Amino acid sequence: MARTPFSQTEYDRRLERTQERLREEGLDALVVADPANMNYLSGYDGWSFYVHQCLIVTPERDPVWIGRGQDANGARATVWLDDDDILAYSDDHVHSPVDKHPMDFVASVLEEMGLADATIGLEMDAYYFTAKSYTRLQSNLPAATFEDHTLLVNWVRVRKSDAEIEYIEQATDISAAAMDAAMDTIAEGVPESEVAAEIYETLVAGTEAHGGDYPAIVPLMPSGDHTDTPHLTWTDREFEDGDPVIVELSGCRHRYHSPLARTAFVGDPPEILTETADIVVEGLNAALDAAEPGVTAESVEKAWRDVIERHGIEKTSRIGYSMGLGYPPDWGEHTASLRPKDETVLEAGMTFHLIPGIWTSDVGFELSETFHVTKNGAERFSTYPQRLFER
Amino acid sequence: MARTPFSQTEYDRRLERTQERLREEGLDALVVADPANMNYLSGYDGWSFYVHQCLIVTPERDPVWIGRGQDANGARATVWLDDDDILAYSDDHVHSPVDKHPMDFVASVLEEMGLADATIGLEMDAYYFTAKSYTRLQSNLPAATFEDHTLLVNWVRVRKSDAEIEYIEQATDISAAAMDAAMDTIAEGVPESEVAAEIYETLVAGTEAHGGDYPAIVPLMPSGDHTDTPHLTWTDREFEDGDPVIVELSGCRHRYHSPLARTAFVGDPPEILTETADIVVEGLNAALDAAEPGVTAESVEKAWRDVIERHGIEKTSRIGYSMGLGYPPDWGEHTASLRPKDETVLEAGMTFHLIPGIWTSDVGFELSETFHVTKNGAERFSTYPQRLFER
Repeated sequence: MARTPFSQTEYDRRLERTQERLREEGLDALVVADPANMNYLSGYDGWSFYVHQCLIVTPERDPVWIGRGQDANGARATVWLDDDDILAYSDDHVHSPVDKHPMDFVASVLEEMGLADATIGLEMDAYYFTAKSYTRLQSNLPAATFEDHTLLVNWVRVRKSDAEIEYIEQATDISAAAMDAAMDTIAEGVPESEVAAEIYETLVAGTEAHGGDYPAIVPLMPSGDHTDTPHLTWTDREFEDGDPVIVELSGCRHRYHSPLARTAFVGDPPEILTETADIVVEGLNAALDAAEPGVTAESVEKAWRDVIERHGIEKTSRIGYSMGLGYPPDWGEHTASLRPKDETVLEAGMTFHLIPGIWTSDVGFELSETFHVTKNGAERFSTYPQRLFER
Repeated sequence: MARTPFSQTEYDRRLERTQERLREEGLDALVVADPANMNYLSGYDGWSFYVHQCLIVTPERDPVWIGRGQDANGARATVWLDDDDILAYSDDHVHSPVDKHPMDFVASVLEEMGLADATIGLEMDAYYFTAKSYTRLQSNLPAATFEDHTLLVNWVRVRKSDAEIEYIEQATDISAAAMDAAMDTIAEGVPESEVAAEIYETLVAGTEAHGGDYPAIVPLMPSGDHTDTPHLTWTDREFEDGDPVIVELSGCRHRYHSPLARTAFVGDPPEILTETADIVVEGLNAALDAAEPGVTAESVEKAWRDVIERHGIEKTSRIGYSMGLGYPPDWGEHTASLRPKDETVLEAGMTFHLIPGIWTSDVGFELSETFHVTKNGAERFSTYPQRLFER
């Protein structure tokens, strides 16, 4: 029996909603290659996305899982699908020196399913669905019509069930423990790698109640002169007196995340930083207050911007995004963003990572909250203190 | 000044060899999107590959880095390129609800460089170079000729310099420390997640001499009934008496890896497992003995297969691959594989992960070595004991 983290009823509902979208779009099939979407629909969970794999979803029948031969047992152990719907290509398709590509096998399956001249949706901009995957499907199935439906499943994922919310809550506890580990370790003379190690140990060990999983993004902690380089990772550099440190991390539970960012300062923070911190906290909470069912994503950003403008700061930016289930390299869903021109209407069940920040010439301050849109408004998952941490 | 882990001379040589390949292939430019290839040529190192980014490499001039606006500072901090060659697209290209894609910007840069009707190489099957990236370049540059050169830079990477070997040696020490942490922790009643946490802490903290980096693949440790599911990751399950556990992990130093796999058994191992272990060790060392400059990749696999066949085991498989620099989801280079039909001739400087294993009906045993092809033959990086670990 497969070990799935959700009930069969929940997988059935996910599939039905996806199939409904296929029918609305006039699709005979959708090739789902995004590992998060594969997990969402089938339960599949393995570090095998470094080779090509996918689900074939059609409007009428259960999905078909396709992957590498040596991963078929992993599929049998994690998906709810029938054994007959787990199909694997031989290992000479992997990084093949001969002209053989996994999508040739996928095309042959589509053909056997009677879909050689069908209208087939592809996740054209999904991670791991390469340009080559596309051209091989095209050349193998010249009579098929391919359409881009990159975010079709992502939009089905946008409203979370109670069970999904529960995993995000468990991830939240792990995030808090890992942030504690970071704040307890950051100090003058301590190497960045040591802080990253403490964070990672906590993220993976989890809490007393629940073990942790690997996060879709590594802990990030730009520091010192580098707080304006948000995606550089840790080095062996030792923290120095006068360093600002922005820590962004996420616990993970059954691939569900709850990101959390806080800023620390090694030594006595300059006044400009504590003032900036106050503005960010005020603006963030204004955004949280604004978020509720029926309002647009852009109006949440506007609430933040109104606050910072009152403090004389002019800055238009994307301050958050829908998130949840994810595999490296991202826990974001790529659907709704909290930014100007995003007119997505918030609905109960949506979950966002709200991560605003302000950078002055010298220092930056960032503080984030992951929140859940409920009928009563936005609810923070975390209760982590909203302040600058002096170390 | 950027902090690059290699000398300018080394980057110059890498670029020259790549440019020579471009000229040989008749390419006016190559769009390099694989994060490992970007790092190799420019030094760029950041967790930003969840948005589109690339280098444009031409036969004559220095490469151009293109990425997201908020990552340009990260580029300035890590690449050796001139500031003028760091170009960034605005944030409304990221997961855009309007019809705007980062590759539109890349196309405009190619046009400004006079390459609108040029012959342009693409890494069609590289991670993160999506189908959409390709179609957007096509539609923006209808007069250009695109050719697939997925592994062009990967093949330039295949022979390592002394400086690269040194980083792999540093990663080896980290791998050994992490394997010690695993073997010290695995025991009846201990959850898998706790072992993974100890491994991760060690991988990231590194050794006394060198801090660690995040590995391109998470520690894998299929256990119990699941040793035949190589890519499932850890759970909260507690190890039980009678569990085999295969641990595969890699230290990482400046993105260079040194993978190591060992098998443990919780309790008294069955005789079939200790016998299998002896065969794997014998076969692995036969393969190591066979590896030297001038022999083919497939002959290394043959040396392994000859040994196991003498023991009555019939099995043809890929037992290793060229590896080194890498980002998630893989540390493999996707160039030479140690398997039948791979006629790559081994040369001094190549580095492989040799990872054979044998699975019987009940148990599996895997043991790996990362090795360096030198003029005197294959040299193991690690001295980790080649045996079954009883826990």
